[in-house]
Amino acid sequence: MSTPNMQHDLLYGNIKLYAGTASPDLSQEIADFLELKLCGRDIIEFPNENLFVRLHKSVRGQDCYVIQSTASPVHHNLMELLILIQTLKLDSAGRITAVVPYLCYGRSDKKDKPRVPITARLVADMVQIAGADRYMTFDLHAGQIQGFFSIPGDVLRGFQILKDYLLEIAPSLNQPVVVTADLGFAKKGRVYADLMHTGLAFIEKKRTADIRNPQSMTIIGDVKGRDVILVDDEVNTGGSMVHGVEILKEHGARDIYMVFVHPVLSGDAAERLSALPVKQYITTNTIQIPKEKKNLFGDRLKILSIGTLLARVIRRANEGRSVGEMFNE
Amino acid sequence: MSTPNMQHDLLYGNIKLYAGTASPDLSQEIADFLELKLCGRDIIEFPNENLFVRLHKSVRGQDCYVIQSTASPVHHNLMELLILIQTLKLDSAGRITAVVPYLCYGRSDKKDKPRVPITARLVADMVQIAGADRYMTFDLHAGQIQGFFSIPGDVLRGFQILKDYLLEIAPSLNQPVVVTADLGFAKKGRVYADLMHTGLAFIEKKRTADIRNPQSMTIIGDVKGRDVILVDDEVNTGGSMVHGVEILKEHGARDIYMVFVHPVLSGDAAERLSALPVKQYITTNTIQIPKEKKNLFGDRLKILSIGTLLARVIRRANEGRSVGEMFNE
Amino acid sequence: MSTPNMQHDLLYGNIKLYAGTASPDLSQEIADFLELKLCGRDIIEFPNENLFVRLHKSVRGQDCYVIQSTASPVHHNLMELLILIQTLKLDSAGRITAVVPYLCYGRSDKKDKPRVPITARLVADMVQIAGADRYMTFDLHAGQIQGFFSIPGDVLRGFQILKDYLLEIAPSLNQPVVVTADLGFAKKGRVYADLMHTGLAFIEKKRTADIRNPQSMTIIGDVKGRDVILVDDEVNTGGSMVHGVEILKEHGARDIYMVFVHPVLSGDAAERLSALPVKQYITTNTIQIPKEKKNLFGDRLKILSIGTLLARVIRRANEGRSVGEMFNE
Amino acid sequence: MSTPNMQHDLLYGNIKLYAGTASPDLSQEIADFLELKLCGRDIIEFPNENLFVRLHKSVRGQDCYVIQSTASPVHHNLMELLILIQTLKLDSAGRITAVVPYLCYGRSDKKDKPRVPITARLVADMVQIAGADRYMTFDLHAGQIQGFFSIPGDVLRGFQILKDYLLEIAPSLNQPVVVTADLGFAKKGRVYADLMHTGLAFIEKKRTADIRNPQSMTIIGDVKGRDVILVDDEVNTGGSMVHGVEILKEHGARDIYMVFVHPVLSGDAAERLSALPVKQYITTNTIQIPKEKKNLFGDRLKILSIGTLLARVIRRANEGRSVGEMFNE
Amino acid sequence: MSTPNMQHDLLYGNIKLYAGTASPDLSQEIADFLELKLCGRDIIEFPNENLFVRLHKSVRGQDCYVIQSTASPVHHNLMELLILIQTLKLDSAGRITAVVPYLCYGRSDKKDKPRVPITARLVADMVQIAGADRYMTFDLHAGQIQGFFSIPGDVLRGFQILKDYLLEIAPSLNQPVVVTADLGFAKKGRVYADLMHTGLAFIEKKRTADIRNPQSMTIIGDVKGRDVILVDDEVNTGGSMVHGVEILKEHGARDIYMVFVHPVLSGDAAERLSALPVKQYITTNTIQIPKEKKNLFGDRLKILSIGTLLARVIRRANEGRSVGEMFNE
Amino acid sequence: MSTPNMQHDLLYGNIKLYAGTASPDLSQEIADFLELKLCGRDIIEFPNENLFVRLHKSVRGQDCYVIQSTASPVHHNLMELLILIQTLKLDSAGRITAVVPYLCYGRSDKKDKPRVPITARLVADMVQIAGADRYMTFDLHAGQIQGFFSIPGDVLRGFQILKDYLLEIAPSLNQPVVVTADLGFAKKGRVYADLMHTGLAFIEKKRTADIRNPQSMTIIGDVKGRDVILVDDEVNTGGSMVHGVEILKEHGARDIYMVFVHPVLSGDAAERLSALPVKQYITTNTIQIPKEKKNLFGDRLKILSIGTLLARVIRRANEGRSVGEMFNE
Repeated sequence: MSTPNMQHDLLYGNIKLYAGTASPDLSQEIADFLELKLCGRDIIEFPNENLFVRLHKSVRGQDCYVIQSTASPVHHNLMELLILIQTLKLDSAGRITAVVPYLCYGRSDKKDKPRVPITARLVADMVQIAGADRYMTFDLHAGQIQGFFSIPGDVLRGFQILKDYLLEIAPSLNQPVVVTADLGFAKKGRVYADLMHTGLAFIEKKRTADIRNPQSMTIIGDVKGRDVILVDDEVNTGGSMVHGVEILKEHGARDIYMVFVHPVLSGDAAERLSALPVKQYITTNTIQIPKEKKNLFGDRLKILSIGTLLARVIRRANEGRSVGEMFNE
Repeated sequence: MSTPNMQHDLLYGNIKLYAGTASPDLSQEIADFLELKLCGRDIIEFPNENLFVRLHKSVRGQDCYVIQSTASPVHHNLMELLILIQTLKLDSAGRITAVVPYLCYGRSDKKDKPRVPITARLVADMVQIAGADRYMTFDLHAGQIQGFFSIPGDVLRGFQILKDYLLEIAPSLNQPVVVTADLGFAKKGRVYADLMHTGLAFIEKKRTADIRNPQSMTIIGDVKGRDVILVDDEVNTGGSMVHGVEILKEHGARDIYMVFVHPVLSGDAAERLSALPVKQYITTNTIQIPKEKKNLFGDRLKILSIGTLLARVIRRANEGRSVGEMFNE
Repeated sequence: MSTPNMQHDLLYGNIKLYAGTASPDLSQEIADFLELKLCGRDIIEFPNENLFVRLHKSVRGQDCYVIQSTASPVHHNLMELLILIQTLKLDSAGRITAVVPYLCYGRSDKKDKPRVPITARLVADMVQIAGADRYMTFDLHAGQIQGFFSIPGDVLRGFQILKDYLLEIAPSLNQPVVVTADLGFAKKGRVYADLMHTGLAFIEKKRTADIRNPQSMTIIGDVKGRDVILVDDEVNTGGSMVHGVEILKEHGARDIYMVFVHPVLSGDAAERLSALPVKQYITTNTIQIPKEKKNLFGDRLKILSIGTLLARVIRRANEGRSVGEMFNE
Repeated sequence: MSTPNMQHDLLYGNIKLYAGTASPDLSQEIADFLELKLCGRDIIEFPNENLFVRLHKSVRGQDCYVIQSTASPVHHNLMELLILIQTLKLDSAGRITAVVPYLCYGRSDKKDKPRVPITARLVADMVQIAGADRYMTFDLHAGQIQGFFSIPGDVLRGFQILKDYLLEIAPSLNQPVVVTADLGFAKKGRVYADLMHTGLAFIEKKRTADIRNPQSMTIIGDVKGRDVILVDDEVNTGGSMVHGVEILKEHGARDIYMVFVHPVLSGDAAERLSALPVKQYITTNTIQIPKEKKNLFGDRLKILSIGTLLARVIRRANEGRSVGEMFNE
Repeated sequence: MSTPNMQHDLLYGNIKLYAGTASPDLSQEIADFLELKLCGRDIIEFPNENLFVRLHKSVRGQDCYVIQSTASPVHHNLMELLILIQTLKLDSAGRITAVVPYLCYGRSDKKDKPRVPITARLVADMVQIAGADRYMTFDLHAGQIQGFFSIPGDVLRGFQILKDYLLEIAPSLNQPVVVTADLGFAKKGRVYADLMHTGLAFIEKKRTADIRNPQSMTIIGDVKGRDVILVDDEVNTGGSMVHGVEILKEHGARDIYMVFVHPVLSGDAAERLSALPVKQYITTNTIQIPKEKKNLFGDRLKILSIGTLLARVIRRANEGRSVGEMFNE
Repeated sequence: MSTPNMQHDLLYGNIKLYAGTASPDLSQEIADFLELKLCGRDIIEFPNENLFVRLHKSVRGQDCYVIQSTASPVHHNLMELLILIQTLKLDSAGRITAVVPYLCYGRSDKKDKPRVPITARLVADMVQIAGADRYMTFDLHAGQIQGFFSIPGDVLRGFQILKDYLLEIAPSLNQPVVVTADLGFAKKGRVYADLMHTGLAFIEKKRTADIRNPQSMTIIGDVKGRDVILVDDEVNTGGSMVHGVEILKEHGARDIYMVFVHPVLSGDAAERLSALPVKQYITTNTIQIPKEKKNLFGDRLKILSIGTLLARVIRRANEGRSVGEMFNE
């Protein structure tokens, strides 16, 4: 129907997609779906590491989207995002949306001990001070991080992407059970269990003195002889997952499917994870995995794209239509 | 030692304690411990319900603390808090700290579905716009709510008050196990389990269509024949607790100790809870429980006071000394 | 003519009317006049008194109006207003207008003695921090309260509603004189006198030690044998009015018509006022008077509706047309 | 007593007085009372009218007061005030108080018709954006202007200066009556009447089409054969006063004492006023009257100085002591 | 093509031009080019010098431009600009652009010695706090002043106006060389030299103790027997120019063309400059030169108008089209 | 003298020095001079590159200084600075000063073409939003960058460090002349020329299409047979310097001394520069040069330390004493 299409011009000007350097494939996929070209811009890194941006065309009054994930190189990508936003603002963009599929520093979201930062709030403040009017992201480490922003945002869930695939493979699974590798993910784990009509178990770990190296300890719930859907929101060093898989196997788990939204895969995580007795690794492209890491997994790695979903959300945002109703909410 | 005492005058002027109407006993206890008088102020409710405040003495340059919990009547108490803060600010107070043992709207801390508010952020914004420079509170529903404030705060834990008592009764317990009534409290539950060197189990509940009436379903972990420490951060309608106790009994739990920081006890919660087969109810005075409700529990209700702790934190804040080191952190 | 209609879509999206719980009849009247439906929303009060809002449909880019008066229960209504505004903002509304026919705390608008608040400024700040872009209201206690907002607003005058009725009854009045019950209303009283081509007199009162109970004293000007139009902006406890009527009668006034914009009618004001020898009580529905209070006055109570006026102002605001020119200004 | 003196160093550093060019005599009087020197600063007006300020000494951490009235040349004086404040701020002053005995644009304090400014709010915003932490002023046109600031302030009343003199002359007056030249000043007039135990009357004027030339019309209340204390907050063109005196004389008033806080005396006001049959003109030095204007009044002009009062308020502000208690409030 | 024209209504409402009193001719020229009328407004200066503004029509949702240069009377013009902006904002303008061809206080743009202001930042803050959404100006004293604003702006260059004329006269010049009167203008001087394919020389001056009276000293580069294009961004007292011309003549310069964007011409600058042996004075109308000053120069004064350029920029801003592409950038 | 020492405790609490990882030697030198220890803090980089900070002791009410230069790795260092500041703020520091000897992105300080950022403003905003109350830095690329901050700062000049050394070697120089490698540095070059009582010459370069590779062209002024002091504020890739030295030699310059404040030395700059026929390289430690780069220069590299100067400025800032008077300003 043409009415909504007509209306979107009225509310916010035309969609202008700007890709940072962190998510080129995803950006192109979004542009293709929307039948738009990515807007031309130069992003230069000077010899002194300072970044410089120049837009090829004016964005006065336009509805601009900056697509930039903030995984490694984290600070470079974050600064690039901020500079792109400011450049659009100073060029009098009509509205600027930071589209950040993976938002860095999500785990620094509270002071759980004295004299530490809440860096996620700092990042939210930086995105706003640079000039963003809205943001879009996927699976914040804690939903409360939405409250760190005073601008509105669309926080999407990788679950919306993953669930179709999980339902597809469900019939072939043997007495499946959903397991979470982290107690903090227990509530979200239940969403997966509900989807697949399975039970739920938890890997209970205890943090050691070295806070970077949590050690999983035992399993609460029953996994013996069952296929396991091991779920988490992101996989970073893979430490919890490595220990989780070990314990699951010790407790007699059958096939293990590792499911996570954000493939951070820091350091040698790809090496360590790909060496595990895991049937399939199911994730998304909120972060673009470098080819050499991808290859380690062979065809056991299933990357589901968030591109179409993001593209549709961008279109709805531009047209002033509900995003929630895409998910019957 | 006199040096720190001398220093505190220099940094922030003298401590001035202002009590709202919500926490009179606690306020007095704090004042007594600090060997100060509560500062005189009129708080009047006009016939049109508008509140009016007048301070008896000037607070120019002084280090002011407004002690006011925000349980029922919630909006009255919140507005009283805000007006007190603004009055102090307009009278040129040197520094204003909102001391809010129980901060309302903590459960509205994220958009877990579309088109809902994040009221906890709104409350944080209101406290700041009124003029608070700092805040103190106990056990936020989610630690991330700290990130909703851009002013610094001291978020204390009722656990610091409860733990001594729990260790005291520990020897008399029979194979105790810590149980959480809500999966979202699972991680905090582990802190209690670590303290008491016990195991951990969870009551796994499933939310029904009516979001106000969650129904507990089963238990993950082992409670049979054991004494149970049933922990949560706050007890509101008591629904989860009522169902939790039922299921624990069904699963063969022995004595049940119900432990929670914030005794919200809405509606007929006190009636329902006090009728349960619970050995002891252990809580704090972050919220002042009305006498008639207290009486329902008889001597099974153990209220541990946060007064001394708060008083010591206020003194340290005034003197510019560490609060964390009170807890060896 | 279709041009203005066409234009309004362009500037701000479509009008979306949200009614709080304080002004249901007025909200419906506005919706009916605009041939719109009130937008669906749930407003739930949880057992712990915390309010919760959920919008039924997305408001992305729309021109939203929250209609909510802030009379009794004052703090509940105020908080509901703020939460509604924030919910709309977080759902990316295009523009949000707080339509508050009666704005609470108007009398706390200056520090007329030391160490008191300016709560009206606090309320203005709260409305803005919640996310309102504009506001509409009627007869602020002091016009200067407009300056407490940094957002623009339409401050309408009940006089625009009342004047037609007053002109209608004017021919039947006997040597009418306009009397103000409060010296602070003297200048506005003159507007009524000019309208009706009458003289002006004042009830001169002296505040006693108890600031809640001002006592009228004498009359400056001539009322003997005349019909009196006794005017004020709001009637709260009715104290001034009761004393005013007494003194007017003592000074030989004939029929008395009591005219006021905001029927706050706190406590037993309706009882006290309805017992007075007053010919007619003429007011508006900026505040919805409960049926039982209304009945006390019988047919002596004339409530003139602001609904059509507000509806027309909303339409003009949405279409980007002048409000002033509605009043030939 | 030495304690308060000792304390003031602690809270805010030392008092540093900076005089703008508008109030040299008052500034010197304040400095003399406080036994301080005015701090050295250059204020240069370049040929292109741009003002330039340079402080002679650093003010790091000091408690700075900028004394500058904002009467004619209004915009020059205002800008000088703002630049002085910013210069202090950029030099890392500890606290900056704008001491503005007469604050310009007070009459532009509300939108009493559509499409006009609220310039008093703009001025308040400018003072804050320049960097002031507090302000001091006298007799704002409307008390509500305090709410235009979000910083605290001391709004003093010329009445505190004038009352002693009025009480001194009271015994020699004949059946005195207080008269206000403007209905908007009616409530403040009552304060004078209460002081002197006299009655109150009002000059009732009607604004003509030309809003700059209000024409007084009649008198409400009794003045015949009485000495009149004709009070207002400021005298600008003197139009109201000229008409007021005429009508008072027509109504048989005896001696007239004209009392006002702010001697704005625009244009030929001094000529017009001094030609009136007024016994005495009683005012203050919130604005420094040029010598040639002063001379027109001869010894009928009584200027009471606010210097000592301001000096004492500054000292109390610096020492963190109550200002209200100076007036037993 | 009609598409862009259609689009501009959609993005920002209609262009509304408001002229302050400083640039009447330029404002009219802009309006004429755009085939619009200047919007009606009253600007009144009350006898107390306070300015008052009233708009004749509502600007709700419209795209408003306030055209006001801020040369002499500087503070009057600046305040008028600010009040116009606030009035538009309070009347709910859709977007407000401050069009300030010459922005005052540009030379107070850094602290080059201790304890001085950065007044240009203060002015930028004032423009924003008044309510401007964007600004347009010409040749800021330092390009960095753009960074003093957090709103976007279009900083145009008088060079765009001057260059066509310079190219026109170029063929008639004898071995021309571009000379800058100030080392701080050296880099911009090169732009002129590049345009005209000439060399570049500098007048090297040394500031004396009196910072208002810089004294030029010598010439770096070769001017002997050449026609000189003496360029600067603004001419204020003309001191540098007078000394520059003297030294150029001493060094054997042939015809001198004085080129500058902003004709500030403070004090007797017009007298002093017009007495110099200069062939032609080439400038713009960013500041309206009073007729009596203009006459001093006779036909040696060439004023090139920025009107058409500004008008086109305003149209593009309104239509959401690039300004940079006007200059092939 | 004890008075200033006594005073500094009063105004701001004790100095607390926190070193980021970018300037360890400088930080230690400052601490040594002040006879303080650097405060303990953990700075951890997690495998996902996210930084984490923990302070060892509380800083409540203390006067904190974060010492962190922002050269390579630029974004890492910048983020570390911001997180340190936020951590101090959330721990209720009394005052936080960002001590950033070299501030990155200084060259992105204006929009000299359309559609580019002003990243220096973004950086200033980020420093402020993180919580800094003040900043200290050296030789901003443009002095106007001070105006990008709304907090006060101390902008020191490397010239204060370099001048003593230059005066020391002056007697051994042969007809010295100061030469600037960039026209934008012309005015600052004059300061060096004045110091050494020499003439001034400029290397005039023309930027090519590739903006990263400016090509110097010619020399304006006389260098033949003279020793050259070649000055600039920073040396980045060294391109201008390399070309400058070549041309100077072509024009017959004798010994060349290269003088610059900030040794950025990006990429292979150290290799290229050290290969030049330069007698001595004179710079400072605003940026810590890695040992391997330092070694390339052998003993021709003279690094003058800013440590003592910064330490003295920090002490004066803490004590509330003038910094300007250190330089007789």
